[in-house]
This record gives sequence, structure tokens and C-alpha cells, in this order.
Amino acid sequence: MRMGELGEFGMIERLKRLLPAQPVDVVLGIGDDVAVLRTPGGDCLLATCDIQVENIHFRTAEITAHQLGRRLAAVNLSDIAAMGGSPLWALASLALPQATPVAFVEDLFRGLTEELGAAQAVLVGGNLSRIEAVLVIDLFVIGRVAEKALMRRSGARPGDLLLVTGTLGDSRAGLELLQHHAWRVSAAARQRVVNAHQTPAARLREGRALGESGGVRAMLDVSDGLLADCAHLCEASGVGAEIVVERLPVSPACREVAAAAGVDPGDWALAGGEDYELLFASAPESEAAIHRALQRAGGVPARVIGRVLPREERIRVRWPDGTVRPAAGHVGWDHFRGEREA
Amino acid sequence: MRMGELGEFGMIERLKRLLPAQPVDVVLGIGDDVAVLRTPGGDCLLATCDIQVENIHFRTAEITAHQLGRRLAAVNLSDIAAMGGSPLWALASLALPQATPVAFVEDLFRGLTEELGAAQAVLVGGNLSRIEAVLVIDLFVIGRVAEKALMRRSGARPGDLLLVTGTLGDSRAGLELLQHHAWRVSAAARQRVVNAHQTPAARLREGRALGESGGVRAMLDVSDGLLADCAHLCEASGVGAEIVVERLPVSPACREVAAAAGVDPGDWALAGGEDYELLFASAPESEAAIHRALQRAGGVPARVIGRVLPREERIRVRWPDGTVRPAAGHVGWDHFRGEREA
Repeated sequence: MRMGELGEFGMIERLKRLLPAQPVDVVLGIGDDVAVLRTPGGDCLLATCDIQVENIHFRTAEITAHQLGRRLAAVNLSDIAAMGGSPLWALASLALPQATPVAFVEDLFRGLTEELGAAQAVLVGGNLSRIEAVLVIDLFVIGRVAEKALMRRSGARPGDLLLVTGTLGDSRAGLELLQHHAWRVSAAARQRVVNAHQTPAARLREGRALGESGGVRAMLDVSDGLLADCAHLCEASGVGAEIVVERLPVSPACREVAAAAGVDPGDWALAGGEDYELLFASAPESEAAIHRALQRAGGVPARVIGRVLPREERIRVRWPDGTVRPAAGHVGWDHFRGEREA
Repeated sequence: MRMGELGEFGMIERLKRLLPAQPVDVVLGIGDDVAVLRTPGGDCLLATCDIQVENIHFRTAEITAHQLGRRLAAVNLSDIAAMGGSPLWALASLALPQATPVAFVEDLFRGLTEELGAAQAVLVGGNLSRIEAVLVIDLFVIGRVAEKALMRRSGARPGDLLLVTGTLGDSRAGLELLQHHAWRVSAAARQRVVNAHQTPAARLREGRALGESGGVRAMLDVSDGLLADCAHLCEASGVGAEIVVERLPVSPACREVAAAAGVDPGDWALAGGEDYELLFASAPESEAAIHRALQRAGGVPARVIGRVLPREERIRVRWPDGTVRPAAGHVGWDHFRGEREA
């Protein structure tokens, strides 16, 4: 069998079975977005990496080097945010074709260090290599979280509310707009959605506030798409969920681009991906405290978008016309296999 | 200017000037092989990464997936060894073409986790991506060292002895043998040098013993080639050095392959690279204690190969015929520019 048949998620499952058991100092290991490592100091160390490949994750025609650097940092910082943690240090590995302009590399590092710096993190190392074909960038981020504020994907219970920070679908709208030059939308809408795609913001202050609030039972960041990441949360927690499309936070800019594209913006909010918002489950009685915690931290607000159900109810979507359908098809992205089913 | 003109080392120098100053908790940052990070617990955290690109660092015709996994681990563990540290955790990022056999990926991870496991380190995460062209593997390793046992490149003083563990040149001999099928050498010699190239051993127990001995003033691992890495140590310490070719530890196997190749094995020992032995400077009065420390730890022995000189004497090589020449030309490898000068 080849990678194109098994796919990314199938391979990870095989590796989890193949590799030796994780020792006790590994709180979370292979299969999670972030490794959580118990240290003598009492805090947990967080370690995550994300490899970005030209023509797979980005095209240099669609993003500047500076934006790419910022984006690379944000994508990794988002994983730290989802654990309720704070980033500390980063290392960057780059494989560059000979013809790469030095100014491109400098701009990429400027963007990377600016985005890290805004999160009080610092680039401390890395390495450079030549490659014959495409540009490859891998960023490794180390962070920290107090063990009692650590957020996991598991822990959601039937009856919990499902909430999400910020808005969903903007990044997909931005990507579509970059690929369809003929669509006519306002300059303000264009700027908002293209920014959301090129330079997403990691929800670090929100993640920390949610972790410290004590009211969140399970959390992750929306990178693969809301339905796909909701499925990850449900699987880890052993629950099902209902998502109410009318409740999804969709920006006016996203609606405007969706109208120009002739599609339902709810589709982009459900499955667009790369939103880097936080999806989390809370007991209903914690809701008020959660909104207060986000406001106190100066974070973006969160909105209830559905609820957690018993596992046997699986994952379903309630559409504006009142119909309720199981979430199936078109719910995420596997880099080897393309769109994948729930 | 393009990367092919500026090169890896020129780019790192530019980035060091470009990027913000490293904060106080960063003991060693950009420009070193390993980042050294002060943690609340008192120990230092070590973080290193190494990206390996198909057709640049390895060819799948010359190494099996299992060997490649072991090699990738060893290369990173060697950096931890050079700081006197112990590895703890690793994350692996892979970019794989669609056609990569799943069995190849499994064998690579088996090799990786075996080599890590032998060093009491564990793989705790990573990520997989598709790539159109060549295979790319990036490994991050986190380790730990007590601050007083931390080894640096700086600290060598004129009058110190220069020592190296194990033997030099075997890896280059192995690489040459893999590329020249017509050379006739004994099976034992072939096995030794090909193993040295495909599955080098990180000198972890030696690095720890040397760090704890208190007798080592500066240390690094020989990855770029003895002369190139000696130049790194001298630059960081602000000193010069003399290397005595007759003293270089060259194995009988390496001599046999060099004879078949019709070259001087001293050239491979001086500039072959990828030896992953430890090069270090010690006061002459510490020499006996160092040999004892290595023996007690069950490590390979070290040998005196030269001495540290004042900076103005630069780096020179004493050849068996008695001539002493400055080290210049053919002293290391820049992935963008090929062979580079001192």
C-alpha cells in the first residue's frame, strides 16, 4: 500500500499501534496536535510542529514571504493556544531551492519573529538545507502550561454546550477569493477574508483565559474544518454532537464573498478549515463565567453553536430549514487523500 | 542575491543580525547547533532540529528506511551529546510523496524509535504532509542538562589539548564505497565503514562523562568535517589550533578503503564529515582524568590530535612529512555552495 491510498490519518493510526507505549512523563503523545510533557518543575511542557510544503500548503503567488512567516508562526501558536498554554521558544527548519532569493528568506524570518514576538515567544534556532524542488518550512514550538490549566480534547460530556471563538469561514472565503479574480466584492470584505487566510491570529489570550476559567471541559483549535475538528473532539471524549448552522458565527465579509461565489457561507463555516478559532465544550452553568473570562482577557467573544450528545447520536447538523442530517462527507482534509468523510 | 550564492553559513550570519536579541532565558540561541534554554527547575532544556532532504542528505538507493530512521535520530542525538546532555523527547515531521510505500514509513519510524529508545528518548509527536517531489524528514529533539555540566563551543584556551573520540573518516569511506561498486575491500572493512555512514552512533555516554568530568573547556560534534568543526570551535573560543595528521584516529577499515580508492585516509579524517565523534579542548593536566571518565562510563576512548593556539596563529595542519600548512580549502560542506573554504 502507498501513502496516497492509506492517507495521513490512517498512517497516524498505524504508527500509534506500531510504536512503543508512551512513558508516564508523556501526558499526551503521538496522535495529538501537541505533545504534553511533565517536567520536574510541576508545569507541563508543550511541544508541537507543523511542516508546510510549497504547492501543498501555500503558493508563493498567493502569499508574500512575510505573510508566510507570520502564518507559519500562527498555525503553531494556535496549537499551543488550544491547550491553554503560553508559547516560549521556536526552532525553524527550512529546505530551500538554490534559486530562493535571500530577501525572501529574510522576509520570511521577519514575519516569523514578529508573530512569535507578539506572543512573547522567541526563535532560538533551526537549520537550513538545500532542496531540489519546492520550499519546505517546518516550525517547532515549545510552550508551557500549568497542569491544572491544561486543556484536552477529551472531557466533553453529553449536555455540555459547544462554543467557538471568533468567526468561521473567513479563511476559506479568502482562499477562494485569491483563486477567483473575477469575483466582485467590496475592498473591506476582500481585506478581511484575505487577511484571515494569509495571516490568521492564534487565540492565545482566549485559550489561556478559557483554561484558567475552570469552566471548559474539552478544547481544540479549528484547523481541519469545524465538522472535522468537532469529530476529533467527540472521538476523544466519547460523545456525539449537534451543530446548529444558524448559530455559526459568520462575518458579513464572508457572507459577501459567498454571495459572489454563489455558495452557502454555512458550508465554508462547517468545512472550510484553517480558521484557527477555538472549539470547546462547557457545562451550561459555566457559560456566563466563560463569556466574562474572555471579556476580561480582552479576547474575541465565543458563541454557542450546538451541544454535546451521547456517543450513539453521533454528529449531526441542524440546518436553517429545520432538517437535521448526519455529518457525512466533505468534513475535512487529508493531505494525501483530499476531502475525507467523517 | 540568491541562496545558491550566499550559502547556508552566510544566511545564518545575516539572520543573526536581522533577528531580535535573544532574551536572558536563552543561554545559547540562533547560530548554535542546539538551543540552550534556562527553565524554572534549574536544569537547562536543549532543543535541536535537523532537516534531511532526499537526494541532498540521502539517496533511497544507498540506505534502507530503517537505517534512515536510525541515522536521523543519531544525527540529532549527537548534537545533544555534544552539549553533555541527555535526550528526552522527539517530534518528527515528514513530507512524503503520494507514492511512498506505507511499509517504508513504518520501517523509518521503527528505526527512529529504536535509536531514540536506546538513548532513553521517546517519540512523542510530529506531523505528516504530502509533497510533490522528494522525501523530507525533520526531527526535533528536546534534551536536558544540568547547567554546570553544559558544554559549549567557546572556552578553549591556548595551551589546551585537542582531543577526539572514536575514529574519523569511516563515514566518508562508507559513502565512497557505496558510490564505487568496483572497489575491492574485505567484507569486514566494508561492513564497518558502511555502518559508520548509514547508522552512526551518537556519543551520548561520552558527552555526559566529559561534561561531568569538569575537565573539558569546549566541545562540539564532528558533523561538517574535523577541520570545519575545529574552525567552529576556534571561532567561538577566539583561538587557533594545530592538528597533527599522524595523530588522527583512523581505523584499519578506513585505511583499507582509502587504499582501494587511491587516496590518503588523512584527507577523509580531516574533511570527510558526518563522523559524529566529539571534538573537545582540555587543559593538559586534565587529560588523565578525561581518559578515566570515558573508561568508567564505558565509552569509546579519546585521543589527543593537536593543541589549541593563540587566535593569530589561525588553524594549521602538521603533515606526516613534517610540513605545516594553514588549513584552507576543502574543509567543510555548505549545502547551498558545496565544498567551502575555512
